[in-house]
Amino acid sequence: MAEKGISQAVISRLPRYYRYLKELKDSGKERISSQELSRIMKVTASQIRQDFNNFGGFGQQGYGYNTTYLYDEIGKILGLDHQHNMVLVGAGNLGQALVKYLKFKKSGFNFVCAFDINPQLFNQTVGGVPIRPISQLRSYVDENDVDIVVLTIPKSEAREIAHSLTDTKIKAIWNFAHIDLELPPHIQVENVHLQDSLMRLSYNIHKNEN
Amino acid sequence: MAEKGISQAVISRLPRYYRYLKELKDSGKERISSQELSRIMKVTASQIRQDFNNFGGFGQQGYGYNTTYLYDEIGKILGLDHQHNMVLVGAGNLGQALVKYLKFKKSGFNFVCAFDINPQLFNQTVGGVPIRPISQLRSYVDENDVDIVVLTIPKSEAREIAHSLTDTKIKAIWNFAHIDLELPPHIQVENVHLQDSLMRLSYNIHKNEN
Repeated sequence: MAEKGISQAVISRLPRYYRYLKELKDSGKERISSQELSRIMKVTASQIRQDFNNFGGFGQQGYGYNTTYLYDEIGKILGLDHQHNMVLVGAGNLGQALVKYLKFKKSGFNFVCAFDINPQLFNQTVGGVPIRPISQLRSYVDENDVDIVVLTIPKSEAREIAHSLTDTKIKAIWNFAHIDLELPPHIQVENVHLQDSLMRLSYNIHKNEN
Repeated sequence: MAEKGISQAVISRLPRYYRYLKELKDSGKERISSQELSRIMKVTASQIRQDFNNFGGFGQQGYGYNTTYLYDEIGKILGLDHQHNMVLVGAGNLGQALVKYLKFKKSGFNFVCAFDINPQLFNQTVGGVPIRPISQLRSYVDENDVDIVVLTIPKSEAREIAHSLTDTKIKAIWNFAHIDLELPPHIQVENVHLQDSLMRLSYNIHKNEN
């Protein structure tokens, strides 16, 4: 389903469309025009039509979009019809919270194993997921289907761990370490920089001072 | 220090500059040219100069930038010379992880109280921060200096809680609920949409399939 050469700006907007369409679909709304969607989402109808035209348009203008169809199609474009196996590297507070959070969400993103350096965590589980010594990470990744590695470790170790996995079959790293990772193009990187987010918030709080 | 009318795109880049400058400063590097910074950060030197010119330029071209000065100045622009009092709304796994994570980071963002609906959590603490019934949130916010409300609750409740606080003195909401909040302009909103992030990752994994 996925198309090539779509800008990351468009891609970044797809999850938001997906979220709003889920709400519309769940509330029983069967069809929606780009004007109506525009009003709810606070983007122009022209932007919506342009975004959707990247993927063939999803249906007739005057008649509006079928919300369930549009939801399903955007889900497929986002690859959400696939299951993704994930391993957690760093089973501290944030890592453990992510395992439990995604389990709760019943998404297609499944943690299959967690790794840590703390021996007190070995042979324990988090949300049903076993925690193993980080020394076993490489062999685990070599011997199992792992799509996504989730890094919730300090930046001092994140770079080394990420680089040690570049010649494996992993497809992506979901990086929570406070660092930019430079990896070969066959490994996708998506960053969640919580501190950057807080700093933007702080800027916006103080921008009108003085 | 903060300037008005700077685009959010520039603001979004400031935390990254701040992060790199910290590494440079900590590694003993005293001065850096825009060319060198450009090479490390993988952005053009022209972009760096344009970004910095929004704030007066931060020093002479040929001579390079003083890393400590630049780090401090960007910190001030980001409002990081202020202390921020935060309350957590939703002391589940993710919320508790955030409290412990930011405590560990020793940043100027301090959780002063947490709130939850679960009676089993009342009178307990997380990372030294007391957990109270959510029914006390409004009176707490009215009686104490609270700058930022951190929402780690389901989307069904996030909107109502956020709207119930719009006439208080809070300055911002750091929103982890899977929803967009529409609030009056005096309240800044910064979203961390973990599921959107995972969806972008999923798209990039599958974009070259078919």
